[in-house]
Amino acid sequence: MEITGKNRIGFTASAKGTQQFQASNPATGQLLPGNFTLVTEDEVKAVMAQAASAFELYQNTTPEQKAVFLETIATEIMALGDALLERAQQESGLPIPRLTGERARTTGQLQAFAQLLREGSWVDARIDTAIPDRQPLPKPDLRSMLVPLGPVMVFGASNFPFAYSAAGGDTASALAAGCPVILKVHPLHPGTDELVGQAILSAAQKTNMPNGIFSLVFADEATAIRIVTDPVVKAVGFTGSRKGGMAIFNAAVNRPQPIPVYAEMSAVNPVIMLPGAVAGNAAGIAQGFAASVSLGVGQFCTNPGLVFMVEDENSNTFISALQESIKSIAPATMLSTGICAAYTAGVERLKHKAVLAASSNTPATAGKTEGSPWIFTVQQKDFLADKTLSEEVFGPVSVIVLCKNVSEIIDVLQQAEGQLTATVHAADADQPGLAAVINVMKEKAGRLLFGGFPTGVEVCDAMVHGGPFPSTTDGRSTSVGSAAILRFVRPVAYQNFPQVFLPDALKNENPLRILRMINGKRTTGVVS
Amino acid sequence: MEITGKNRIGFTASAKGTQQFQASNPATGQLLPGNFTLVTEDEVKAVMAQAASAFELYQNTTPEQKAVFLETIATEIMALGDALLERAQQESGLPIPRLTGERARTTGQLQAFAQLLREGSWVDARIDTAIPDRQPLPKPDLRSMLVPLGPVMVFGASNFPFAYSAAGGDTASALAAGCPVILKVHPLHPGTDELVGQAILSAAQKTNMPNGIFSLVFADEATAIRIVTDPVVKAVGFTGSRKGGMAIFNAAVNRPQPIPVYAEMSAVNPVIMLPGAVAGNAAGIAQGFAASVSLGVGQFCTNPGLVFMVEDENSNTFISALQESIKSIAPATMLSTGICAAYTAGVERLKHKAVLAASSNTPATAGKTEGSPWIFTVQQKDFLADKTLSEEVFGPVSVIVLCKNVSEIIDVLQQAEGQLTATVHAADADQPGLAAVINVMKEKAGRLLFGGFPTGVEVCDAMVHGGPFPSTTDGRSTSVGSAAILRFVRPVAYQNFPQVFLPDALKNENPLRILRMINGKRTTGVVS
Repeated sequence: MEITGKNRIGFTASAKGTQQFQASNPATGQLLPGNFTLVTEDEVKAVMAQAASAFELYQNTTPEQKAVFLETIATEIMALGDALLERAQQESGLPIPRLTGERARTTGQLQAFAQLLREGSWVDARIDTAIPDRQPLPKPDLRSMLVPLGPVMVFGASNFPFAYSAAGGDTASALAAGCPVILKVHPLHPGTDELVGQAILSAAQKTNMPNGIFSLVFADEATAIRIVTDPVVKAVGFTGSRKGGMAIFNAAVNRPQPIPVYAEMSAVNPVIMLPGAVAGNAAGIAQGFAASVSLGVGQFCTNPGLVFMVEDENSNTFISALQESIKSIAPATMLSTGICAAYTAGVERLKHKAVLAASSNTPATAGKTEGSPWIFTVQQKDFLADKTLSEEVFGPVSVIVLCKNVSEIIDVLQQAEGQLTATVHAADADQPGLAAVINVMKEKAGRLLFGGFPTGVEVCDAMVHGGPFPSTTDGRSTSVGSAAILRFVRPVAYQNFPQVFLPDALKNENPLRILRMINGKRTTGVVS
Repeated sequence: MEITGKNRIGFTASAKGTQQFQASNPATGQLLPGNFTLVTEDEVKAVMAQAASAFELYQNTTPEQKAVFLETIATEIMALGDALLERAQQESGLPIPRLTGERARTTGQLQAFAQLLREGSWVDARIDTAIPDRQPLPKPDLRSMLVPLGPVMVFGASNFPFAYSAAGGDTASALAAGCPVILKVHPLHPGTDELVGQAILSAAQKTNMPNGIFSLVFADEATAIRIVTDPVVKAVGFTGSRKGGMAIFNAAVNRPQPIPVYAEMSAVNPVIMLPGAVAGNAAGIAQGFAASVSLGVGQFCTNPGLVFMVEDENSNTFISALQESIKSIAPATMLSTGICAAYTAGVERLKHKAVLAASSNTPATAGKTEGSPWIFTVQQKDFLADKTLSEEVFGPVSVIVLCKNVSEIIDVLQQAEGQLTATVHAADADQPGLAAVINVMKEKAGRLLFGGFPTGVEVCDAMVHGGPFPSTTDGRSTSVGSAAILRFVRPVAYQNFPQVFLPDALKNENPLRILRMINGKRTTGVVS
């Protein structure tokens, strides 16, 4: 496949616009091949019409057909071979091994949703059979299941060119749910998105999916918002900045017909290090923390940007060990000059407001798009007095909030905003206050860790990658794992329907062999 | 129990305000006993603090304790005896048999949620066990389940003084989910709400529930919105007008921390009568339709306000039969003078814009709060040309849209707004276009009926009482049936937690004996 710079209106490549842009290599600053043409209003209208018509047809495909489609996308992505990895490396500055792993995660997600569809029970089929002679009124036959919302707009994310972009978790879960996808390409990796988009379209054609099941647009912010507010679009998936996420959210809730927005926006992912844990293993925790905060140049939404600990001799030992670990971490290329500049500015702000605790011995090269790790400390009362200290700085930086005791830790945690994750390190000696700490963590975050660090998001049934606002705009959801499919569906009940007009999932004989709730009992059986 | 007119800050009665109001009897216009004192800002603050503290404590109660609490509420409501029914009758104008049935539905809902809690599997427990030696990275132990959002604000509804008010579906499902409730009393039935509220508080005290698990306020619109925007409130349940619902929705999404709003606002519940069905049973369908449109003086959110049918000799027969049925329906007391005036104005508008097809032989008594049924017809093209014809007129009125053919029916249905229900009447002869009709119905509504009429909402697992905007502000939910509990929860994942700190639902030995998903398999077994 080649990079053409053209939008895709379903299967049709289109570049009617006059404005173009190029991607650049953050490591070298050089422009990369490919002129990407911004989508025009006429093209957007065509995309919408195609998505609407695809939605009608896609609903008539079976779970097995959708599963084969998803698996074929995975195959087509792998068929892009090294060319895809190389382009992604050039556009993102991320190393090839990381990108190889991320590609595996991406194809793995597609395959996992295929399995979910084949198993089929996720539709939450519920059947309450009729009782015609019930007094005072007969009970009707009622059957419900989850059905797709409609076309979903997906925004590619800068920091995961595969796993949260063209064929990432949002796209995979929306397609699995039965929703066509309109991809807004991320401007930092348009070539990567176009290549993966072509893989999706190729898979769609090979598996006879309807034209419009996937479209791809190069769009500026205004056009992106115009798509968010199009009546055809029924939900939005986004991973990125709080500013970007809130612009989408505000547009979506102020539409004539408001729609759900699943925007993952910002988190500092507090790590609570209780005194007993630090006393027992200061060096080990420091080593793990240094690795987590600097992983991928800190460019993860689950990066641990905040530490709460009690200031004592052990915290001093911890910070000394941290200095040892951090000083040898070399600077590395960040995703873009803009992200790097924001990171540098954020670190400069912290230098004025907090105490430097640890940094790399190797400074970032002047003029290069590089980030290196920085760790600061601040007293709890100063932290509480300055809201900006709790804001995310995207990159390998963390602020250690020094507290007088565990009660101060709980206080500061209680005032924290919603988070994707919250982590506690605790030893036996920490038991007295631990339950209270975990209770507050549960109110604040979508994923709680006991030990370890929050970077690394396992793709599985039990993963929750989501959390209270502002970590996401909808804390009732996860964007990773099989439950991500639940974001793009709604329940529909069928009352007194003849068998022939019921979806397979609700038919008496249970042709899909799924687990259903029949008259209050969960069973894979038939309606007798 | 007595009507005191006092707010309830948890268990404490409070009436510090100076503004009071009384309820009146819509049948007689007479003021009813009881001076209800509007809540003050200080009292609101106390309510919020109490709800927040109750949330912490309520989380430590077991499912069994919550179930007993809900059942005790049902018992305490019944213990209010005839005094409750009489007060509700005086405040709402609804007849005693209807109120007796609604009370049974209300206590039944409480008992059903108690059963749901005892069974326990609704928490969607998911367990993925660790694989320490997985390459390239170990797999952590991840376990997730649904946890309560936090305090929920519930608005009492005018048309269901029991089933959608103080101890109605919103309150029952929020309490079952683990959320304290702050009730905003409906101004049309404050005495009823206070009596039921006292039953809830009495049950809370008898079952040792925390102070603040339920509060009750008399509030004007501005104060209600102030509560919606309080940081303590984490979700809102509302049934009422589109104007009221949108005011709440807009306030909630523009909070610093946006929260979900489950507002059920308006629906005209289209009934599609296909030609074959009308040809086969015009009189029978007309009779059923007349009964449905006039049931409870048309004051149901599922009232069939719109009919789509093909104009032919059979539709004429249908309308003649409808005239027969409608003319003998006597006028009846509506819920309030305001609702009656809005109904009368709505009917007057229709008289100018549509053709009168059927009405009662007995006019509503001048000066009384009465409504009587009206049926109008309009041509499809005229209907499409005037958006106001598709707006809900709350009361016993319906507009029959006459189409040239089934294709025109599909066109008009496609342009309809989101609905709570959509109904089709079809016979064998209607098969050719039927699948297409059902497809559009599915996009537009939360509950689809094959035959019958939408009034009557069964409380069961498979019920979906919800639908795309503007029938509700969140079409991903139902406000009736056991799935209503899912509105007030979010998922939380626990990573590598020791058994002792896991909730019971996620412990290895499965002490609650619930159905869980363990490594992809649904089982009631233990983690081995």
